[in-house]
Amino acid sequence: MIVDNALYHEGVRVPLDDGDPSLGHARVPCGRGDFQWVGLHDPTDEELQQIATTFDLHPLAVEDAGDSHQRPKVERYGDTLFLVLKTLWYVDEDDAVETGEINLFIGPDFVITVRHGQGINLGTARRDLEQRAQVLEHGPMAVMYAICDRVVDEYEKVGASLEIDVDEVEESVFSPARTDDSVRIYTLKREIAEVRRAVMPLREPMRRFASAELSGIDEQTATYFRDVSDHLHRVSEVIDNLDVLLSTAFDAHLARISVQQNEDMRKISAGAALIVVPTLIAGIYGMNFDQMPELHWTYGYPFAIALMVGVSSVLLWFFKKSGWL
Amino acid sequence: MIVDNALYHEGVRVPLDDGDPSLGHARVPCGRGDFQWVGLHDPTDEELQQIATTFDLHPLAVEDAGDSHQRPKVERYGDTLFLVLKTLWYVDEDDAVETGEINLFIGPDFVITVRHGQGINLGTARRDLEQRAQVLEHGPMAVMYAICDRVVDEYEKVGASLEIDVDEVEESVFSPARTDDSVRIYTLKREIAEVRRAVMPLREPMRRFASAELSGIDEQTATYFRDVSDHLHRVSEVIDNLDVLLSTAFDAHLARISVQQNEDMRKISAGAALIVVPTLIAGIYGMNFDQMPELHWTYGYPFAIALMVGVSSVLLWFFKKSGWL
Amino acid sequence: MIVDNALYHEGVRVPLDDGDPSLGHARVPCGRGDFQWVGLHDPTDEELQQIATTFDLHPLAVEDAGDSHQRPKVERYGDTLFLVLKTLWYVDEDDAVETGEINLFIGPDFVITVRHGQGINLGTARRDLEQRAQVLEHGPMAVMYAICDRVVDEYEKVGASLEIDVDEVEESVFSPARTDDSVRIYTLKREIAEVRRAVMPLREPMRRFASAELSGIDEQTATYFRDVSDHLHRVSEVIDNLDVLLSTAFDAHLARISVQQNEDMRKISAGAALIVVPTLIAGIYGMNFDQMPELHWTYGYPFAIALMVGVSSVLLWFFKKSGWL
Amino acid sequence: MIVDNALYHEGVRVPLDDGDPSLGHARVPCGRGDFQWVGLHDPTDEELQQIATTFDLHPLAVEDAGDSHQRPKVERYGDTLFLVLKTLWYVDEDDAVETGEINLFIGPDFVITVRHGQGINLGTARRDLEQRAQVLEHGPMAVMYAICDRVVDEYEKVGASLEIDVDEVEESVFSPARTDDSVRIYTLKREIAEVRRAVMPLREPMRRFASAELSGIDEQTATYFRDVSDHLHRVSEVIDNLDVLLSTAFDAHLARISVQQNEDMRKISAGAALIVVPTLIAGIYGMNFDQMPELHWTYGYPFAIALMVGVSSVLLWFFKKSGWL
Amino acid sequence: MIVDNALYHEGVRVPLDDGDPSLGHARVPCGRGDFQWVGLHDPTDEELQQIATTFDLHPLAVEDAGDSHQRPKVERYGDTLFLVLKTLWYVDEDDAVETGEINLFIGPDFVITVRHGQGINLGTARRDLEQRAQVLEHGPMAVMYAICDRVVDEYEKVGASLEIDVDEVEESVFSPARTDDSVRIYTLKREIAEVRRAVMPLREPMRRFASAELSGIDEQTATYFRDVSDHLHRVSEVIDNLDVLLSTAFDAHLARISVQQNEDMRKISAGAALIVVPTLIAGIYGMNFDQMPELHWTYGYPFAIALMVGVSSVLLWFFKKSGWL
Repeated sequence: MIVDNALYHEGVRVPLDDGDPSLGHARVPCGRGDFQWVGLHDPTDEELQQIATTFDLHPLAVEDAGDSHQRPKVERYGDTLFLVLKTLWYVDEDDAVETGEINLFIGPDFVITVRHGQGINLGTARRDLEQRAQVLEHGPMAVMYAICDRVVDEYEKVGASLEIDVDEVEESVFSPARTDDSVRIYTLKREIAEVRRAVMPLREPMRRFASAELSGIDEQTATYFRDVSDHLHRVSEVIDNLDVLLSTAFDAHLARISVQQNEDMRKISAGAALIVVPTLIAGIYGMNFDQMPELHWTYGYPFAIALMVGVSSVLLWFFKKSGWL
Repeated sequence: MIVDNALYHEGVRVPLDDGDPSLGHARVPCGRGDFQWVGLHDPTDEELQQIATTFDLHPLAVEDAGDSHQRPKVERYGDTLFLVLKTLWYVDEDDAVETGEINLFIGPDFVITVRHGQGINLGTARRDLEQRAQVLEHGPMAVMYAICDRVVDEYEKVGASLEIDVDEVEESVFSPARTDDSVRIYTLKREIAEVRRAVMPLREPMRRFASAELSGIDEQTATYFRDVSDHLHRVSEVIDNLDVLLSTAFDAHLARISVQQNEDMRKISAGAALIVVPTLIAGIYGMNFDQMPELHWTYGYPFAIALMVGVSSVLLWFFKKSGWL
Repeated sequence: MIVDNALYHEGVRVPLDDGDPSLGHARVPCGRGDFQWVGLHDPTDEELQQIATTFDLHPLAVEDAGDSHQRPKVERYGDTLFLVLKTLWYVDEDDAVETGEINLFIGPDFVITVRHGQGINLGTARRDLEQRAQVLEHGPMAVMYAICDRVVDEYEKVGASLEIDVDEVEESVFSPARTDDSVRIYTLKREIAEVRRAVMPLREPMRRFASAELSGIDEQTATYFRDVSDHLHRVSEVIDNLDVLLSTAFDAHLARISVQQNEDMRKISAGAALIVVPTLIAGIYGMNFDQMPELHWTYGYPFAIALMVGVSSVLLWFFKKSGWL
Repeated sequence: MIVDNALYHEGVRVPLDDGDPSLGHARVPCGRGDFQWVGLHDPTDEELQQIATTFDLHPLAVEDAGDSHQRPKVERYGDTLFLVLKTLWYVDEDDAVETGEINLFIGPDFVITVRHGQGINLGTARRDLEQRAQVLEHGPMAVMYAICDRVVDEYEKVGASLEIDVDEVEESVFSPARTDDSVRIYTLKREIAEVRRAVMPLREPMRRFASAELSGIDEQTATYFRDVSDHLHRVSEVIDNLDVLLSTAFDAHLARISVQQNEDMRKISAGAALIVVPTLIAGIYGMNFDQMPELHWTYGYPFAIALMVGVSSVLLWFFKKSGWL
Repeated sequence: MIVDNALYHEGVRVPLDDGDPSLGHARVPCGRGDFQWVGLHDPTDEELQQIATTFDLHPLAVEDAGDSHQRPKVERYGDTLFLVLKTLWYVDEDDAVETGEINLFIGPDFVITVRHGQGINLGTARRDLEQRAQVLEHGPMAVMYAICDRVVDEYEKVGASLEIDVDEVEESVFSPARTDDSVRIYTLKREIAEVRRAVMPLREPMRRFASAELSGIDEQTATYFRDVSDHLHRVSEVIDNLDVLLSTAFDAHLARISVQQNEDMRKISAGAALIVVPTLIAGIYGMNFDQMPELHWTYGYPFAIALMVGVSSVLLWFFKKSGWL
């Protein structure tokens, strides 16, 4: 679906009849420095094809834009730049990271954004940008920067949410309670891998944008991409750190299982001792010797019971004192 | 065996008497832009030798083409390019990845394909290509692209099948049932290593094709190889991710074995307590003291049994309440 | 807050009326070789904005300088260098590494230092520098060197404190006492990761300063940065080494838990044998056979007790001798 | 010992009086394109010294050639190339990889081969080469190629033998039998490390030979070295793969030990239950209550025995049904 | 302390009055090709300062030379080269690697050696060198080579000693005896890390010396440094290999602990069975049923005992046969 379509002249939106869907497929004649921005959301193949014909996009890029399972990348087809970005957001209810996709075609006088799935709201992004004519003036590259910046900002939020999750895991691992944290750690590692796959492939192209190695990016825009690149580095550092922490937490989890097993084993053995020792005493007084003086004592029975309790108490005291329990 | 042999003139197949096997060994005179495509399947050394003589192929490349245990590679011998590709396919019955091999000789006016084992059907690939004269027009490089594309598509299918397998393992590891997943994880890791050995060595040459660093590849063909290269990256990312997931799943498997052992140990100790405590009681009433009032009670025996059941019930309740069970 | 503001002429502080806060925002006219140094501590956004306007700083750098969660970096905006440094210090009470941040703007004739949080005392650093006119003469770069040097010195102190902590952990792991060192190891690994995030990103820019690759750094200043770079390497080596040692210590910890469990199990089994064997003997003499001569011996009972003690003693001796205990 | 010494003229061996040992030390005048090949086996220092003087070899290279504990390397001394190759072979009897060493001096008109220990038979290699005059014609470089090719072929055979060993380990690890595979895995990892140390340092020089970067290697010889380089890559891939497989197999081994321990523990506990429950019953009927009707039944005793057997049977059935056994 | 001071003219020591300590601080006028060599051992700051003034050394290098906790490095200050080398030696008594430090200042016509701690004996090194005028003739670079060579030789000896230690650990891990090898493995890993820190930072500068990239090193001297560089590589390979072996040995150690625990558990359970089964039999004949024919048999008691022994023997035979023991 074509969700928005407008011409920007000197950074200001020029009213187009957005209501007319046929317009989406038409190319508005652009003056020098002007550019057209067409926004699509989950487009059908036909819509995409029409846009491709209108703006003369490369078939391979169009094919990629129609598919929502691309890896993030930046490719140049002639004087058009094609960007695939993964959008990430954190769903609190199920502690999961969800992914969507944004495809950008950046031409000399047009921007085409194709959004798959949920995630970042490009409509809001566009309206924010329209408030800042001095940014929009810089043309399509400014739009690209604005979207990258927003996407990466979302990455940082996801990173922060994952940090909270890892803190929770950490607390759970080191809590005295018996916890089986392996599922949680596994799931978090999986989420982190997903974030990494969104973040890592962008680092190299953003670095190239930042160092103005690509034609079409001037020194000033490059400075802004340096900022995006810096944020990407920050996210990937956070993510890497969380991954390492989780591995360490997992190892600690393993160690604690062993320690607990050891403690349990000692508790069990102590408990067993408290039963089998009296059983031995009972066995002794159950022997059938003719001559067993205790058997004939008036208080022989209470004495035997007292002996059992006494020996067990001594054992318990001994276990505690010696550090066995 | 020579399975097919044809001349392509302006992208259109020129009928040759394929029935005549001797023709396979003859070089058809090519006009400018035309090329000959000879397809071989598990050729004998003699067939290969004759082809080599006809098309003047380098002996080292021919030797490699005759052996089906090469690693994937791209080599240049004069103006002929020699490609070794591993074909992969997933056999559902035994959850295994099978490998075959395709060797390509790409000359200025000929293509020779040598297939070992099963895997991708080059016959179908050829027929598909023959439908698209505008691709075939680009000559031998287009054939090379078409085959690489198809091979890499198969890699992606294998990757998808392995993803399903890993999901199953994951489910099994975290299921409450006692499972011994180590064999499955080991086997999957082995398969993944096999895929990696097919995929990894291709990445560098495909990147070079994609950036048109090799002579004989024009800008437009390079764009298509960029697509292949991109798919290769996707496969290798999927594979790497699965490998890491499996390692993590294995660690979780280890942790769960320990946790289960701990739980078993506690179950066993609780069960033992339910037996040894009554045994102690029975032992006490088996003692031979003269003075044991309970022994002479009318309901002494039922009382003793009730005592045993009662103490065991209390123990059981205590174990449950304290979280031991 | 503006904490200090002065002009340096030929390495000597020129008295300015620091008491007048408005002066902080004014640029003092500089002669050739002179420079102005403004020191800020936890500035408000307005203060930062005024300074930015006065010294014509790039908005992105100013934004970063206002935020205390940057990663260490060096960026060039026109002829101004922007540095973010993490300050680290070790808090003995809770064995933790704390972090602060220093931002530096190094222009051709000015230095602006922005400190967030505690950590290194820039006031003292400035007063020390003012004693060494021959250093200050070298201008803003000398100030940058002096601050980097001081920050990295602190890193080394933190590294030394962590070394002591790791030594303690090591001792605890290999002590015969039962210790649960996994929490301690985990926490230390976390601290080390924090130090690494402060140290690593600085290595590359310092190396570049040291090799005088950046304009504005002469051969002589470069030599001094080589010293800083060398110290950074030393810190990162110490940190890496500690990390590896902790991992090895953790593995050893795991091994020792297992060994201890094994020893405990053998102790338990030996203890059990000392009880169940006499129980068997008691059971035998509790049998009701008509013909059991021992039962009628005068010293049958003492004999049975002696038998129990004797067998247990033999068992104990056997366990010790055979290495079971 | 000088084992062979000959002059090659246009690829053909020129008969020299090999019987005369003094000849070994003499330099035979070479025509254009001719070269002399001296073969030494475990030479004494004096022999080596004489050869060094005759052919004007660099003292450092000669020192290395006399010592059989060098790492593989290629070094250039003036117009002489000095190669150290490790020879590897697999000894079936003790599943071990043995190493020898070959040193080559390749001058413009001479080849000196120094073999230490067993391994590849250079005599056979020489005789094989003498059959192929068209190869020998290419001079000393052809000899170097032939030897490298043969050495690397041996590496591949060793790799194949190790693959069989790893398959055996794999089978043993996953067999239901209790096996202690850690020694075997450790030993294999050690062997693999040894192969790696022979293979890895050769990869870079062979790549350089293959890309004709070294003077003295023409395009055609380079093609042959590309083949050697390719085989080296194959070996190193095999070796790396085996190493990873062994690590995974080891992890699986650990997991299976735990699983077996768990199963054993459950078997033991079930066995114990089958004994202690009847013991409890016996204890009950061993109590001395006045009123125990069963004691006076005619078939009381068989009833008790039947009860014991019955309860044990029920327990056994229950353990099996619930999956405990 | 100044331990030696001499002038070398054409490789020959020119007698100076070494007894006069003031001479140490004086610069002896050097002719073309001559150089002065001053040797210091644990110098005071004043001694170092005087030398620095006499030979015009850079203050940062002098500061480093006074401190014995530097990392190995090579730095150029003007036309003076500054080297920091770690000396290593193995102390047999406590299986530990000790470290010392040597600092070298190599000027165009002087060498200053500063030794901290024990380790290599520079006095002997000097006397050895003085025997070889043809080496000393090459000037200060020859001295640098000779010292580097000697230091690296010591590294190789340390490596060899560590190899013996690792062999011992290996033997201990795989011996049937119960050993707790984790302390030993940990300590060895620590020593290896120490060696690595001495060796690794030297590899890059030695490589640069070997390829004559540094001015002041001619082709011939470079060849000698190539030898040193080669030895360094050998040491670092040995060290890396030992590290990997130790990790694998540690894993094997863990596996064997588990295997032993399992075996112990089975021994314990078998032992328990041999006791509890007779106890059950005793319990049965301790029951008080009126009708128990065996009780009245003349040989009932011996029969019961025989039954106990018989059942236990059968059990023992069964455990052995089934592989449980």
